[in-house]
Order: sequence, then C-alpha cells, then structure tokens
Amino acid sequence: MLYNIKLTLEYDGTHYHGWQKQKNLPTIQGTLERVISGIVKESTKVIGASRTDAGVHAIGQIVNFKSKLKLPESSWVKAINSILPDDIVVKQAEYVPLEFHARYSARKKVYQYMILSTPSPSPFLRNYAWHIRHPLNMASMIEASRHLIGTKDFSSFRASECSAKSPVRTLDRLEIRMIDTSTFLFVKKEGLPIISITFEAQSFLQHMVRNIVGTLKEVGEGKISPSHVEYILEQRDRRHAGPIAPSRGLFLVEIRY
Amino acid sequence: MLYNIKLTLEYDGTHYHGWQKQKNLPTIQGTLERVISGIVKESTKVIGASRTDAGVHAIGQIVNFKSKLKLPESSWVKAINSILPDDIVVKQAEYVPLEFHARYSARKKVYQYMILSTPSPSPFLRNYAWHIRHPLNMASMIEASRHLIGTKDFSSFRASECSAKSPVRTLDRLEIRMIDTSTFLFVKKEGLPIISITFEAQSFLQHMVRNIVGTLKEVGEGKISPSHVEYILEQRDRRHAGPIAPSRGLFLVEIRY
Repeated sequence: MLYNIKLTLEYDGTHYHGWQKQKNLPTIQGTLERVISGIVKESTKVIGASRTDAGVHAIGQIVNFKSKLKLPESSWVKAINSILPDDIVVKQAEYVPLEFHARYSARKKVYQYMILSTPSPSPFLRNYAWHIRHPLNMASMIEASRHLIGTKDFSSFRASECSAKSPVRTLDRLEIRMIDTSTFLFVKKEGLPIISITFEAQSFLQHMVRNIVGTLKEVGEGKISPSHVEYILEQRDRRHAGPIAPSRGLFLVEIRY
Repeated sequence: MLYNIKLTLEYDGTHYHGWQKQKNLPTIQGTLERVISGIVKESTKVIGASRTDAGVHAIGQIVNFKSKLKLPESSWVKAINSILPDDIVVKQAEYVPLEFHARYSARKKVYQYMILSTPSPSPFLRNYAWHIRHPLNMASMIEASRHLIGTKDFSSFRASECSAKSPVRTLDRLEIRMIDTSTFLFVKKEGLPIISITFEAQSFLQHMVRNIVGTLKEVGEGKISPSHVEYILEQRDRRHAGPIAPSRGLFLVEIRY
C-alpha cells in the first residue's frame, strides 16, 4: 500500500539556497528529502507547491511525498520536526488521495512582501524585510498596482531564465497596506512602519512578485509615475521594469487547493 | 577638548558572546570599540549600561564613549552604522556632559522576556523567544510574581559567579501579559500566543531576570505553587529556584537616567 502525505511547512529561508535541491548546497527540498528518507528508510522525493528562491521564507508552504509507511498524522509531524534543523518546522501532516500533487493541484498562491520604511534599519528585521531609508508614497504605489491586477502579459516582470510557456498570468489581488506592529515584540510603543504587499494568483512567472515590488518601490520614490506601469507592461520587455527586490522581504503565505 | 557621546543601540545578540569584550570572541562591546576606534583613529573604550549575556538582545542599550573628534550627532550615527555589521544598529547619538556614565548614571533598567506558548515552534522566533510546548497557567504566574515585587534579598535568583556586594534589590515592576501578535508579519490571521514578562529595577543581580523566568515557568506548569516562590526567596539559596531560562528570549528594552 502506498500513502500520499501532505505537509504544511514554515521556514526561515535565510540560510538556504531556495526550495529546489542542488548538489552540495543546503536547500529546503534537499533537507526535507534527507530527513524523510531517513525516517521511511527509502529514498523519497518531496514535491513542493512553490519553488521559493534563495532567501525567501514560507509560513504556508505545502509539500507532498509518497510512502509505504503509515504513521498517525501527528507522529509524522513529531518525527520529522525532531530531525529537522530549527529554521524549518512542519506545522501539520495529512493523508491525501494519491492523485494529490502539491504543485499541479494548487488553485491559488498567496505571497506577501515586507518593506521596512524607516530612516534606520532594524537588526531584527534584517532578514525579513527590504529596508528603504526614505519615505515611499503609498498612494502612488496603490494607484500603480491597479494597472497590474487582472489577466495580463507579464513579460516585463519575468526573469530572463523563466521557463513558463506563456507570459500571461491573472493577478487576482495586489494589496498594499501599512501593518500596525505597535504591539509586537522587538518594537517599542511607537511600532515600526512596515508596508506589506500581498499578491494572489493561480500561478506566477519566475521572479514576477519581486520584479513588481522593485517597480512599485520606484513608483513610491517618485522615480516613475503610477501610469508608467501600464507602459512597462505594454513593452513586454524586462528592461523597462525596475530592478528586482531582494528575496529576504518575500514570504510564501498560503497555497489553496 | 574632549567630548562625551551617548549612543542608543539595537542589537540581535544571537551571534555574539554578550556585551563584554573577550579575546578572540565576537562581542557587542568589542565590535563597537573596533568600529569607533577606527573612526576617531584612537583606541576608544565604550561603556555599556547593561552587560547583556551571550544571546541576549537589546532594543534600547545605552553606551557612551569619549572622543576628541566632534562630528554632528547624525554623522556619528551614519559613520558608525556604515561600518557595523547589520545585527547591531545605532539609533541615536547625543552629546552629554563629561560626567555622564552609561552604567553608573542609570536610574532604571527595563527588560522584557518572551515565551512562545504553542504546540509547535516558530522558525522566525527561534532566536527571540523561549518555546514552551505545553500551556502555561498565567494566573498562577501572575500570583507568584507578586511575591517578587519590592525590596528583597534575591540570593536564590543570583548566579553563583555574581560579584555584587549586596543580594538585595528592589524590583519595581514584574508584569506578565499576553501579547497580541495577530497583525504582525510571519504570523497568519490567528496570531501567536506570546507571553511577555517585563522587569523594571534600578539594578539587577547577575542572571536574576532569567532565574526568575525559569521559576515562573515552573509555576505556570504547576510544578510549584505560586506561594512557594516566597519560600524560595526565604531560603536565600540558588538551589531552591528553577533552572535558568535561555538567553534568547531576553531583551534589554530601556535604560532611564
């Protein structure tokens, strides 16, 4: 009998070369496959819903693997966590039908990008947000974001090495808001002004989220006008968009099936 | 002319062997003295208000140093930050009277200890909170804390190597509360239950905060009763209190003058 096990993962991506297995480099997939293969005593492939880049974090990555071993769901969580390093944590394990595929079955992906907008950086957010020293005009960024929502050709926001067949994607949500951090630890009474940008789509092109964030930042700085984003899209050429935003501010938040 | 410069610092203590300079080990004081000596081109001693232990963090450490060089206050901030590693950040620089001494002039110190009380750990809080898997009884912890407030002989909560002349200290505040983290990044809608314990006193014995937290945790677990804390105090013997809490959950929050 073969079982299909779905895991929900959280990880701090700082010390990993991304999701995808690479020879002699620490990756999330490589680490999970080593740990799970050790538990089931058989070489095991782990499929991830999102192939996060080096330095990108996850609070809701979904993966699946097949195994002949049947353990109670909570025992999978305990067994895997007891061996994993402390920057990767399994939050949940669940048996799913054999045809479930973490990547192909996904209907929606949600990412969140964090910008710390303060004169001085925070030592506690150095790996979790993009620090921008000067103030950003959020109204302009929100205006610009409206041009990006819907079904569009995102060639201008796509990595040159992106292997997707079509550059057309449907961005269902692009929400820019200020997060109130006033009650959180590391933060004094006044809180820290963090700009959060949430993206939701069935699928994304490679580097699409970070390329959009890099362009929205230039809009926020007043380097380009909100309506210029429309022009950038029309060019279908990566050289017209802003530079890519750093990976450390990006979080994979949720995968929906 | 000699100037006295006061700095307000934030640091992530994870990768440091504490505040105090040590040969061949990275410390906060050692790092600052190297950076500042390089800027003023003269060997410079930096005095810290609190000698934080290895792994302890600060969001409001105060230090001072004397220099013949006179720069605008904001230039001290920029010059020092441009050389410091990104886990130590100068938030403010200020000229103060020559007699100001970061440690001896301090009137009050505020520390905060963070406990993450959830079944599974958080990869993002692994260096910033003590993870306790089972629920803690906060009402008992609060009841126990009342026995510790005021002027007491804290011998039972003092490190064996503590060099203070008197074991008597006055704890002005010991506040235990739940922090609402629901709106913060890394955290989904439901938030994470974090117990924050705030300590305020003119001065503390070595390891006093972490030894009290270790004992309060045992009260929260029901291992000892709230009133037993009174008995522990009366024994004036470290062996009666609970084990020391890990340094990673401790933050130096504020020094008042």
